Amino acid sequence: MEKKRVRLVVAYDGTNYHGWQIQSNGITIESELNRCLSELLQEPIEVIGASRTDAGVHALGNIAVFDTTSRMPAEKISYALNQRLPEDIRIQASEEVAPDWHPRYCESRKTYEYRIYRGEFPMPVKRLYSHFTYRPLDVESMRQAAHYLVGEHDFKSFCQTGAQVESTVRTIFSLEVEEQGAELVIRVCGNGFLYNMVRIIAGTLMEVGQGKRTPESMTEILEQKHRQAAGPTAPANGLMLMKYEFLR
Amino acid sequence: MEKKRVRLVVAYDGTNYHGWQIQSNGITIESELNRCLSELLQEPIEVIGASRTDAGVHALGNIAVFDTTSRMPAEKISYALNQRLPEDIRIQASEEVAPDWHPRYCESRKTYEYRIYRGEFPMPVKRLYSHFTYRPLDVESMRQAAHYLVGEHDFKSFCQTGAQVESTVRTIFSLEVEEQGAELVIRVCGNGFLYNMVRIIAGTLMEVGQGKRTPESMTEILEQKHRQAAGPTAPANGLMLMKYEFLR
Repeated sequence: MEKKRVRLVVAYDGTNYHGWQIQSNGITIESELNRCLSELLQEPIEVIGASRTDAGVHALGNIAVFDTTSRMPAEKISYALNQRLPEDIRIQASEEVAPDWHPRYCESRKTYEYRIYRGEFPMPVKRLYSHFTYRPLDVESMRQAAHYLVGEHDFKSFCQTGAQVESTVRTIFSLEVEEQGAELVIRVCGNGFLYNMVRIIAGTLMEVGQGKRTPESMTEILEQKHRQAAGPTAPANGLMLMKYEFLR
Repeated sequence: MEKKRVRLVVAYDGTNYHGWQIQSNGITIESELNRCLSELLQEPIEVIGASRTDAGVHALGNIAVFDTTSRMPAEKISYALNQRLPEDIRIQASEEVAPDWHPRYCESRKTYEYRIYRGEFPMPVKRLYSHFTYRPLDVESMRQAAHYLVGEHDFKSFCQTGAQVESTVRTIFSLEVEEQGAELVIRVCGNGFLYNMVRIIAGTLMEVGQGKRTPESMTEILEQKHRQAAGPTAPANGLMLMKYEFLR
């Protein structure tokens, strides 16, 4: 039987999941996709994810691919799969790709947003998708600090220790800090991100906003190449994977 | 013991509640406030709410008042109460008001937003706070229709049947239809709203946006003074009580 490779754009609310990657002790986005795809296509399916997001992290457009011998047209799979998935996971698009196309070995631009809700008290309708802080943040300092991180750098200081990667050099194309009313949005676009990198950037920029670090200290943090040089890892709920753009 | 009246600004995520008003068969915002206030102040407390929102409706700023003999300063109650409330209810402010001040017998301006997410597929992180539609909506027609509803009118056609009110005349100060990316926000400010009025306005404007009704037909709907003249009641999850402004 002929096999084809299908690419999915996957959106989810990560609140109730143990992250993307299959685990023995909890339901994950990957396990739900595998279960529902296997039921739908009547064969065992195992997806490959582009970004293995942590527990509590959300996505508007993560990417998964899988191979199938099903004759269901690739474009129809999004509709049929959404009928089976829980309401906090929704496929946004499905299409056939080349049999050797792999989301992790393909040049791409990834955009993440880290959202902070600023107020005297938490706002219930923001709690699942924004990190709350009552501390005042100097947005202009955060923007200045962000500027130092743009470009190609060794981001080892912004990588969770224990992560096994060949190289910790990445390129950030843009890093903006945007005010949206009571919310502050840190929007970062890059060619790739190390483990917890966006959350460590967010935690470090927040320390700059609180006056605990200077914008200029970003240079030193990069130079130290040590996780302890940077600020804390900001909580997962504020993080959202916005989109993947593949360059070939 | 001296009694004082305290006013609370109450924010909540209505997803997991049977609405505001106390019911025998489920947890409500009112029942949670009464329970936590009674525990905190060590006396039986019963709040009076400004707007008895339906199940699934959210609020950034609903209003409640209660009387207490507690010596805890009114401004401190917000902090102490938030320690006891579930995380989907948060007091935004507390202050002492005149002993005869009543939120429902006080001239005020209320602002509601009804949020619609437009897309080919639902977006999980929007599902709790926006009504999803895959149908295209002509925003300009919706704006024209909205224009007919601004001002003082008898809104009987936009009132759920069975509601017992002395008068169905209300004044809408403004009614805007704003595009925020994939979301459409219907923002309405008025001196008062009948039962389900904002959701019926939203449902009717959506039918205009779908070309099922003309903007001009709003005049006829108002004149008919009959619920069946208007469109359907839009689902609760898209509705958010934004704020109360008291004029005296």
